[in-house]
Parts: sequence; structure tokens; C-alpha cells
Amino acid sequence: MSARLSAKEEYEKLLDSYDTWLFDCDGVLWRGDHLIDGVIEVLDILRRRNKKVVFVTNNATKSRKSYKTKFDQLGVETHVDEIYGSAYAAAVYLSTVVKIPKTKKVYVIGQGGLEEELRDEGVAFIGGTDPADNTLAPFSLSDFVLDPDVAAVVCGLDTQINYTKLSKAFQYLTRNPECLFIATNEDSTYPSAHGLLPGAGAISAPLRFSLGRSPVCTGKPSSTMLDCVKAKVHFIPERTIMVGDRLNTDILFGQNGGLATLLVLTGITRENEITGPNASPIVPDFVTQSLGDFRAVQ
Amino acid sequence: MSARLSAKEEYEKLLDSYDTWLFDCDGVLWRGDHLIDGVIEVLDILRRRNKKVVFVTNNATKSRKSYKTKFDQLGVETHVDEIYGSAYAAAVYLSTVVKIPKTKKVYVIGQGGLEEELRDEGVAFIGGTDPADNTLAPFSLSDFVLDPDVAAVVCGLDTQINYTKLSKAFQYLTRNPECLFIATNEDSTYPSAHGLLPGAGAISAPLRFSLGRSPVCTGKPSSTMLDCVKAKVHFIPERTIMVGDRLNTDILFGQNGGLATLLVLTGITRENEITGPNASPIVPDFVTQSLGDFRAVQ
Repeated sequence: MSARLSAKEEYEKLLDSYDTWLFDCDGVLWRGDHLIDGVIEVLDILRRRNKKVVFVTNNATKSRKSYKTKFDQLGVETHVDEIYGSAYAAAVYLSTVVKIPKTKKVYVIGQGGLEEELRDEGVAFIGGTDPADNTLAPFSLSDFVLDPDVAAVVCGLDTQINYTKLSKAFQYLTRNPECLFIATNEDSTYPSAHGLLPGAGAISAPLRFSLGRSPVCTGKPSSTMLDCVKAKVHFIPERTIMVGDRLNTDILFGQNGGLATLLVLTGITRENEITGPNASPIVPDFVTQSLGDFRAVQ
Repeated sequence: MSARLSAKEEYEKLLDSYDTWLFDCDGVLWRGDHLIDGVIEVLDILRRRNKKVVFVTNNATKSRKSYKTKFDQLGVETHVDEIYGSAYAAAVYLSTVVKIPKTKKVYVIGQGGLEEELRDEGVAFIGGTDPADNTLAPFSLSDFVLDPDVAAVVCGLDTQINYTKLSKAFQYLTRNPECLFIATNEDSTYPSAHGLLPGAGAISAPLRFSLGRSPVCTGKPSSTMLDCVKAKVHFIPERTIMVGDRLNTDILFGQNGGLATLLVLTGITRENEITGPNASPIVPDFVTQSLGDFRAVQ
């Protein structure tokens, strides 16, 4: 059962117990364009106590640099190297975890943010926003020239998804059994400003289905994402806590990585999902109403 | 264990036992553009003995009318009403099995052949080849007007697949829990003239994944396809045999429908998939090398 935090001493104890604090963003720091009450003060408390803070998001259409503008707009202090998007994680996975040779490249299904992260990590790529692949013109294998240097297919949310991209990726993954298959994340839906749309997991779904093969996922809840954070940031798992609003991504991600977990109720998870007969089997270590509750220690 | 046919009496016995003969096409009647030896004579024998012949294909991009031209080109006599494509089956499923009201319509992800079959069965539709939906322009929910008369989404192979189509279908299926979700077939790959490409199952995969919901499938091996054949053709299952070259579509389709099954080895299935330690758990009733073997009865 989760420990429900309410007293000042309980918040103090958590601050003493964990040196590294991983945060999901939407539903924890803000909801859409609205900052959650008290977040700036609480992040300030953490920084003053020399806690390491890391922001972990599955958003793969934006690079860390462009994602930082969201923090800036809402007045939340951060540094680019504190932000881990799943696109950045995919780039780090290739550059630092599997160490793809410099002579090799990846075929991208994804948008500019994913390309920017690959470029910054020194990973060569084709596809992506290349106009030749962003077309509804008929695709014919007879016109297709396989690039022998493609050693991986990386798939993120791509609202320009089409049969040419899927067919090319399918060729790379079937003609070269060594070719890596990587998905930035497998979110089933994407929360647009006006409602839910198909998410990144829907973009890689045709390949998963046609190949009968699952990609390595570099987003939450996969522990591969934590491996990518580890490749860049030093932290001790026993002294690290993951704070999130989603049980099946954030909390599971923390649990998969052997971290403590704290659920906040300012996002997607409702009270009846953590208590009572229909509670989820994913049980966070701690629950509090809002990240702002940590102001109690002031 | 399957009975392996070889003697004239065995072929005679099969001809006596079954009145309705269902045939897969590619790998049974022809391979690509090459007719399999003896097929015309054997179909002629069946017709002379007053057998009912039905051709059952998962191809959903062609209407029956345009699929018939393939028969014509190879000199195989047939009539349009002997051909059951999965697109036709989807149209029959809507018009005759679930009896969609005339005031309702379907949202189509698919090509002209699927539209032609829907039109011929009197099922109103939107989407499909409509230029408004065949675009890579950004999709925004704020511009989207939900058509309240859409009562089903039908998804077939569509090489014009894009995020607008997926997003619209996703809206119809999430905003109206009663909305039917139909896939013409779930083939993982599509055999193009120059090699394999993602199949119809890859086109519906994003919706299956985002919705966490499986469509009703009107192609082999689903017994729904046989329900659609039954809606148009009278046959007695005990006196009916399904002839095919694929264990996991054709033979399973026959078994799911309570029909006898005959595997031919002129298509995809190899000898080692039906005998020995690695044999498939799907066991046809009868096996013969080629449909042409039935010439033995002449």
C-alpha cells in the first residue's frame, strides 16, 4: 500500500531520503498551459538543498532545446541538460549505449525534434523531414535503393506518417536482420490542445504488426530510458525518486528502474485508481495531492 | 494427420464428397502472373459435375469486378458473383449481416475497390479517396466536424494512409462507443510485384493500438468472412471444402467455419511445415501437390 503524505515531517523525510528527483512534466509541473500551484517554490526548495532534478518526458516531437521554451514560458527555471525527452533518449541510446559506428546511419520516422537530437549526438540519419519521404505519391519497390549504411530504424510521433516511410522502414528491418528497431515511446494517445489523437505508439504499430517484432523503447515506462539517463547523469538508484501522475508510464518507469516512486493527483490518475476494489496493480511508494504540497517544509 | 492424396480413387472420392468448393487464388490457381498447370481443366471438371465454385481472396484494394480481370487475363472462366474479396465481405457484413440503417454511413480508410463494393451494396460512406482526407497537411481537431451519421469505420489496405485519416477514424471510434470497427483483413504483409510491403493489418494497427480494441475482421481466417459468403450463397458446411496454400489463413479459415480443408503445395507452405518435428499445429484434412492433380479423374 502507498504511504499517503500529509504531515510536514513526512515531506521532510522524503527530502532527506532522496538526492535525485526525476519529474514527469505534464500533470506534475503543469496542466496544459497552466502551472500547478507551488511548483516553482518546491523546485526552488530542492535546488537549495542541492538535490539533482531531472525532467523526463515522452514528448518526442520536440528537442530538449525547444521543450525548454515551455519551462521558460511558465517561469520554471531549468537547464537543457536537466531535460530528458524520449527523442533525446533515442539519440543517446544510439550514440552512447549501443555505440552505433560513425559510418552508419539511422532511418528516421519522426519530426524535426528527433532529428535535432540525433544531430546533436552525432548520429547520421536519413528519412525524417526529407521531402522525398513526406509524400503520398505511390511507393514502388522497383524505384527503391536500399542504403547499405542504415543500421537502425528510429520511430517517434510523426504526423507526416505515410506508406513510403512505412515501406522503407519495413525494407531496412526485413532485409537486414541486424537492423535495430527503436521507438521513442509507445504512448497510445497524444494529448493535443483540443483532445486526444493517436500517439507515438500508433506510428510504430504498423511496423510492429508487419514484422511481428517489438522495438526497443526509449521512453517511459521502459527501463532503457533510465539507461539513457544513466549514460549522462550520475545517480544512485536507492537515493532517487520518480515523481509522476501516470501509473502505467511514470510510476511503472520508476519501479522498472528500481527507484522510489511518488504519485501526484494533479494529472491523469484519479483517487479510485489507487484505492478500493478497482485499484491498479501498479502501487506507488508514496502519494500526495500535488507537488506543491512540499511547501509544507518551508 | 492429413490424408495425402495420390490415387485416382482418392480424388474421385473428394469430388463425390463436396458440392461447394472454396478456393484461395494466389498460390492455388496462379503464382503471380503464371497460371498453375492444370487449373483450367480441373475447374472445368468441377463445373461439369455441377459443383459450386467460390473464389475467396483477402485482396481488399480491388473490387470483385476489377479482380475478375485477373481471371480473364489468365483465361480462367469465372463470374463476378463467384468472387468474394474481403472488401466485398466488409460491404456485405454492413449491408446484410449487421444491417446498417440506410441513414447511417461508414468512414473509410481504404482504396477505390473498397468504395466500389460499399456503393454496390448500398452502403453510404465518407473518407476513402476523398481528396480532403488524402493529404499530409497538419490535422487539427479544432477544424474537425464530426459527422453524427457515421456508425462504422472500415479499414482496408490503403497506400494513402496518413495522420488525418487515422485521427478522424480515432475520433469516430472514441466519441461514439457504438461505432463499429471493421478491418477487411489483417494480413501482415502485401506481396507486391517486387517484394513484400506492409499489408492491410499494418493499416489498421495504429487504431488497434491507440484504441486497445480489435476490429471485426471480414477476411480469412475470420469466420466472419464465411458468414458474409453465407449471406449470399447457399451451401451446406458438411458438403463444402476450402482449398488453399496458407495454413494460417486458408486452412484455418476452413476449420473456423467447420469446412473440410485441402492444402496445395504450389504456394507458400513447404513440406516441412506439415510433416516432421516443426510441423504447424494447423493440420489440413487433405494434402495434394497441386490443384492440377485432380486431372487424374479424367
